[in-house]
Amino acid sequence: MNKEKQIPEIVIERLPRYYRCLRQMRGVQEKVSSRELARRLSTSASQVRLDLSYFGGFGLQGYGYNVEELYRRIGSILGVDRPRRYLIAGAGSLGRAIANYPVFLEIGFELAALFDVNPDVIGSVINGVEVLPVDQLESWMGTHPVEAAVLTLPAEAAPDVADRLVRAGIRGILNFAPCDLQLPDDVPVKNIHLTDRLLALSYWISNDPRCQNREKPEVKPEKIDRKN
Amino acid sequence: MNKEKQIPEIVIERLPRYYRCLRQMRGVQEKVSSRELARRLSTSASQVRLDLSYFGGFGLQGYGYNVEELYRRIGSILGVDRPRRYLIAGAGSLGRAIANYPVFLEIGFELAALFDVNPDVIGSVINGVEVLPVDQLESWMGTHPVEAAVLTLPAEAAPDVADRLVRAGIRGILNFAPCDLQLPDDVPVKNIHLTDRLLALSYWISNDPRCQNREKPEVKPEKIDRKN
Repeated sequence: MNKEKQIPEIVIERLPRYYRCLRQMRGVQEKVSSRELARRLSTSASQVRLDLSYFGGFGLQGYGYNVEELYRRIGSILGVDRPRRYLIAGAGSLGRAIANYPVFLEIGFELAALFDVNPDVIGSVINGVEVLPVDQLESWMGTHPVEAAVLTLPAEAAPDVADRLVRAGIRGILNFAPCDLQLPDDVPVKNIHLTDRLLALSYWISNDPRCQNREKPEVKPEKIDRKN
Repeated sequence: MNKEKQIPEIVIERLPRYYRCLRQMRGVQEKVSSRELARRLSTSASQVRLDLSYFGGFGLQGYGYNVEELYRRIGSILGVDRPRRYLIAGAGSLGRAIANYPVFLEIGFELAALFDVNPDVIGSVINGVEVLPVDQLESWMGTHPVEAAVLTLPAEAAPDVADRLVRAGIRGILNFAPCDLQLPDDVPVKNIHLTDRLLALSYWISNDPRCQNREKPEVKPEKIDRKN
């Protein structure tokens, strides 16, 4: 555990990719070389060996890594081996999509509640979980243990709800709201800013000379059978 | 334009945050200092000045930056001043949430089409746009100009559809599928791996000693009026 504390943040941020890659390989192959992992992750074999050396270096010269063992080990470091409960604040279309996203449950995160302000949405059931009024956030959290919150709220509403979650004891926040939250250091936040990513893509489409020079390939128009 | 080619990628990746921040300040205040921008973006004033110096350095000593001018300039660099069309491949709940996400249109991205393989979904209309069978992807793209694609597909289906999009002339991809795409260098991809971000959050919740030491504050349980 002492050793793990020294894992650099940049390596931690890469661990989920290793985990995802190994997950696809489980049951298909027993072992994997650093070279193969590197190829699948578009990185270098030396980078893979360095990253994995932070938690014990269980690769064997000429053999590689045991896929199942490495998968379990990284899962354990990421906390996936303990079931967790999370809530969603904001039951609009993005919140509902997250509630129905199967992979969160597969990595051990169970949806415990959804909250919203909209009377049309409150009381509806999404993926077996009822949408509660956000007024009840604190009282609900007082009686239901929950570790993480997913914020799928507009930018105006997110900071206030995030503060309330922190005061009620939330352990971490996955923030989809297009704003940067100012929270205490001991409450980790991971942002998923959809628009920022689309804007970054837009930049590369607009300005990258490689994209500029790219010609649209000839596509033979076919007769299209569609209604509109 | 020559000057802009030299903007480091790390600065480009930060530009959307500046853009988002300035967007909130428009109409509220006329000017902004590097110090205030830094505070709002949780960075340093010298970082802000350095970042913004890449496109001309229009901040004035003792005055700061003109909010509207800087907003428009960054928007122009990001390509937001030109309307763009995009398609969504995968009309499941995440694809539908993206189709209904208002901010994409606000930054100039207009949804042109959705594609899916599911007969139950094909033909339905989401945010005014019909879901087409994915078989028609190439023929549709041959007659409809579209610059970007959003992939909201399972990991198994994403690589094949991405290859088809590239062959049909797509300029860039926003990838939500939990896999890494291997595409030509001249087709930029921005990944939004929801599960990776949740796993990174899970690590910090599990292993950060600051989080470990954090006690759940006392919350007085109240009587809860809910159905289940």
